[in-house]
Formats: sequence, structure tokens, C-alpha cells
Amino acid sequence: MTEAAATPGRNMTDEIAQQPAVFADLLAGRDVIGEVAAHIAKRRPRFALLAARGSSDHAALYAKYLIEVLLGLPAGLASPSTTTLYGAQPDLTDVLLVSVSQSGGSPDLLEVTESGRKGGALTVAVTNTADSPLNAAAELSVDIRAGRERAVAATKTYSATLLALYLLIDAVRGGTGANAQPIPDLAASTLEAGQGAVDDAVRRYRFAERMVTTGRGYSLATAAEAALKLAETSYLSARPFSGADLLHGPVAAVDAETAVLALCSNGRGGDAMREVLDVVHDRGADVCAIGSAASDVRASHRIPVPDCAEELAPVLEVLPVQRLALGLALARGFDPDNPRGLRKVTRTR
Amino acid sequence: MTEAAATPGRNMTDEIAQQPAVFADLLAGRDVIGEVAAHIAKRRPRFALLAARGSSDHAALYAKYLIEVLLGLPAGLASPSTTTLYGAQPDLTDVLLVSVSQSGGSPDLLEVTESGRKGGALTVAVTNTADSPLNAAAELSVDIRAGRERAVAATKTYSATLLALYLLIDAVRGGTGANAQPIPDLAASTLEAGQGAVDDAVRRYRFAERMVTTGRGYSLATAAEAALKLAETSYLSARPFSGADLLHGPVAAVDAETAVLALCSNGRGGDAMREVLDVVHDRGADVCAIGSAASDVRASHRIPVPDCAEELAPVLEVLPVQRLALGLALARGFDPDNPRGLRKVTRTR
Repeated sequence: MTEAAATPGRNMTDEIAQQPAVFADLLAGRDVIGEVAAHIAKRRPRFALLAARGSSDHAALYAKYLIEVLLGLPAGLASPSTTTLYGAQPDLTDVLLVSVSQSGGSPDLLEVTESGRKGGALTVAVTNTADSPLNAAAELSVDIRAGRERAVAATKTYSATLLALYLLIDAVRGGTGANAQPIPDLAASTLEAGQGAVDDAVRRYRFAERMVTTGRGYSLATAAEAALKLAETSYLSARPFSGADLLHGPVAAVDAETAVLALCSNGRGGDAMREVLDVVHDRGADVCAIGSAASDVRASHRIPVPDCAEELAPVLEVLPVQRLALGLALARGFDPDNPRGLRKVTRTR
Repeated sequence: MTEAAATPGRNMTDEIAQQPAVFADLLAGRDVIGEVAAHIAKRRPRFALLAARGSSDHAALYAKYLIEVLLGLPAGLASPSTTTLYGAQPDLTDVLLVSVSQSGGSPDLLEVTESGRKGGALTVAVTNTADSPLNAAAELSVDIRAGRERAVAATKTYSATLLALYLLIDAVRGGTGANAQPIPDLAASTLEAGQGAVDDAVRRYRFAERMVTTGRGYSLATAAEAALKLAETSYLSARPFSGADLLHGPVAAVDAETAVLALCSNGRGGDAMREVLDVVHDRGADVCAIGSAASDVRASHRIPVPDCAEELAPVLEVLPVQRLALGLALARGFDPDNPRGLRKVTRTR
């Protein structure tokens, strides 16, 4: 326990509030990311793999969509256990392997990165700890510059990882990061203007027992992160689904006792959520729509978020999600800074 | 509603029982799969992508592990929406694209397969419907020969897909399928010997509200399939986790009110589950261990499964899982053959 733990949720509250400044700092250091991107572009990778655990795995999922759509490269999420448990040593010539970890200290990611580099991959570590073992193992590194994170639940390191991955991938295709320039200001207004709607949502879902989170396209990552954040701070049994997968079976478990957190941002992912919301609405579920298209879909409750380029929406959408997880944890009598049974760095293999 | 729906769960019951015969039939037709494998081997793919939805997505996850470990090829699960929503057209030269679908009728998989073939991928359809649009779109096809599936919840088509994918991937590396020969007999004894332990589990979890399913390595696919099967037949809010990911945060939500279905088979995946079971056990959770190593781990209840080669364990493990989903649905008053709000073919894009 640290001294800051005296006020429940103090660290998480502070770190959520720091995000606009963290984004501004990251944008100011865009040139360093551009140099890493230039190295990647020169090597012309033909396939991308992303390795991560926990919240970082959701940032990796976001990057998978960016790489496929913006770079036109096939991409996949690595399964660390094929390396760590089964000793697989695939030929990774022409492969870009991006390892994402806030701490850079996860033994399994270290092993995957070392083994991938031996196998011929161009390895890139994306961390918040520039002197970590993962950075030492990878050929290239991106520092997300979010500052020390005290809360066990990742907030600013998650969103900073998203933005760093966007800037990196945009720069690989020769982009200037122009779409990201308004993000710090938009993040500040998301936090200021959205608090009332979040407070209402905390009152509304205070007693919820069943929760499903859902999104499509880039926002699928936000749905996954929302479910994890709710599970680890409020101990809610929240399950994330792509809107498409939800309709393939799990929707049978959605009923009037289910709260559905639906990520709905302007763009093709949000548009594709309309048919999903029609189905869950007709089943009697309570739908909380979060995002720039929230006011424009069938929902029981709405948390609006300012508009931005669709591929950057996950950076903004997650802010009210973090506030909701924090608020629900406090309302339910838990300290989100000290979740039962969790440590900041989990050492799985 | 069909006439067979008169007895709740009749179709699902019958189709679970058909699996040993389905496996024997598939093994008898191994030569046809071998010819497809020879085509694949000749083209020397360097990366693999797997496209699927629902239960088939879990079979695809199983195949991803097989491809990485047995073939030493990097592999990833395709995100259909990057094609269907965002129009991504990656260069897929040297890529093996395997599309997995019981019906072969999913519009999004059809689009991914057509677009992948245009992009240069070697496309393979794995279906239970040899004259499906997906088979027509792909260059090569594997028929899982499971016979018509009447129940909405996939059982025999799921396990037959696993076995077909194993035989295919094993044949690509020049294997003879020897490890799979005992599977039909072992499946029969799994169903005969295991019923008592499944019945006990149905009584034990009749009133469970919170369930987590977990596994590592090849068995992660079984954990994912278990959660889906329980959600779509018993409307349980079950959430699947890799054992490693569970320890990275979601374990905070595991408590004495949580039932944990843990897949534990002999081999490296099952061995790695021991530390996971220690943690969830210490948190007071009720652990139901399923698999050939079930008698050998910390658990509150055990459903043993005969031993086999580790990479084939998912084909056997899923049989008691299906029986448990069926039994819980019936005990809770539902008809698993007619889940509320589901159709056999879901037409998402």
C-alpha cells in the first residue's frame, strides 16, 4: 500500500485527468516516432504480428486494425504460449513484430521478442519504460511517455499506447499525424463535458449484475478494454463481443437483466452497430451508448464524445469508460487503486 | 420449429452421441484431406490467416496453434470487418487463408475469401456443406463430413472441424495422422465413462450465476467454445480467458461466487494451468477441472477424459463440455435446440 491509497481511487482519478497533457506531450515528440517509422518503412515488412497481455492486448488489437486498413498488411495477434510453452520457432523473415507492454517487464513477451528477433522479425517494443528488458531485446523502441502509472488499473498508459501506435503506423505510410493534432483538446473537452453523463451511468448501473460490452471495427478494442476495466476494478462479470460475433450466438444470453455498453462512433464501425443495437434493444436489454454517434442510435442512456477521425475514436471513447469503471468501483465500495489480488506487473509465462 | 423440437434438447443430444462415428468417417476419408494438404505444401505458404465467426472461430484458434507449433508458420485470426467495413485489400502473396464455416453461407467470410483470393492468398474453405458459396469461392476445400446438423448449437460440426483441421495441418507437414487413429474409440469411451461426472456437475452448477472458463495452449480453444456453448444454450454469463490473461487483471473478479471451468489436459498447456488453479482456488472459487489431467490438479469437481496426444485433446475435452451445456440448459428449463433469438446461419457483414 502506498500513502496515496488513503483516498480510494485517488491514483486512478489523477491519472485519468492527466491524459490530455500526456497526449500533447506525445504529439510534441512525434519526430522520434517518425524515425522508428522510417526504419520500419525501409524494411518493407509483409506481415505484422502483435504480442501483448492484458490492457496492452487491446491496444494491440487496435493496431491490428490500423495495420490492415492503413498499411494494407495482413496482421495477427501473437499467441505467446506457442513460443513459451511449445517452443515454436517460426521463420519470421519479412515479419514486423510489435511487442506492447506498459512495464516492458513481462517474461513471456520478452521471450517472444527475443525468439522473434532470432527468427528474422523486425522487432519493435512499445512501452512506458524506456530502460526495460523488452526495450533492450527489441531492435527498435517507441516510448509512450505517459509518466509513472501508480494505479494498478491502466488508464493513461492504455490511451497513450493507442495514440503512440496510431502515430507510428500513420508515419509508416508517410502520414503527418494531422488527424491526431486536435486529440489533446478533444480529450480535455471529453472529460469536462462528459462527467454528468458518466455520473448518471454510475447511478444507473450501480446494481447491474450482467454486463456485455460491444463494438465493431476500431472500437472493438474499446469494448474489450471496457470489459477488463470493469472486471478488475468493479468485479463486474462483463463480457466483450464484436457486434458481429454477438449476433452469432451470445445474444441468446442478452435479456432485460443485461446492461449493454455499446461503443458507437461516427464512421463505418459505428454504422455497423445499428443492427446490433436493434437486436439487443428488442430483447429488452438496457443499452448505454458511448461515442460520437451515441446521440444517433437506439439507446437507454448516452455518453457523448466529441467527433474525430474514426481511426482515432478509441483514444477518446475510452476516457468515459475509465471514468465509469472508477465511479462504479467507488459506488460499490471498492478501491480501484488496490484491486483484490492484483499486482502491477504480472509475471506469466 | 421442426417436429424434432417436441422433446427439448433431442437434436443436441443425438448430435453429441454421433461424434465417435463422425470422427471414424472423417479418418476413413483422410486421403482426400491429404490431397488438399499436398497442394498447400507445394505452394509453401509463409504466413497463415484464419477467418471464421462463432464456434468456428474457436476451431480457427485451435488451428492457429497447430500451424504455429507443427508447421512453424506465423499465423493470425483475420478480422473480417477490416475487409467488409473498411475495404482493406492487403497483398496476400505467400499467405494461406483458411476460412472455417459450418454452413459456408456467412456473407462476411465469403467476402473475405473472395477478396483474399484476389489479393494473392491460397484460399481453403473448411465447411460441412460441400456445395456452399464459400467452397465455390475458395481454391481448395475440405469437407468435414459431419452430416446435417439440426440443433442450433454446434456440437458435431465443431469437433469434426477440429479433427479435419488437425488432419489437414498434420498432412501438410507430411504426417500420417497416426495420433488421430484412436480418437473415435476414445471419444466413445469419453461419452460412456464421463456421463456420471457430467451429471454431478449439472447438479453442482444448476444455480451458478458467474462462470469463467479457462485453458492454455491448444485447450484455450475449448475454454472459448465452452463459454459460447453455455451462453447460447443456458444463457449463463460465462467468460473465457487464457490462463495467462486471467492472472493479468480479470482474476480480481473471481471470488467464492464464481464457478471456474478449467481445461486441464496432459501436456504443456495443462501443466501451465497449475499456477492458475492455485490462484483461483485461493480466491475461494469453485473449480471444475475437465481433461486428462483433471484428477491431478487442485479442483472442487473433476470430469476426467482419456489421455491422447496433447494437440488432439481439444477434440475429446469438448465432449463433456457439450454434455454439461446441454444438461444445464435442460435443468434450467430451456430447450437448447431452440435458443431464444438465434438462427442457424447468422448473416452479419
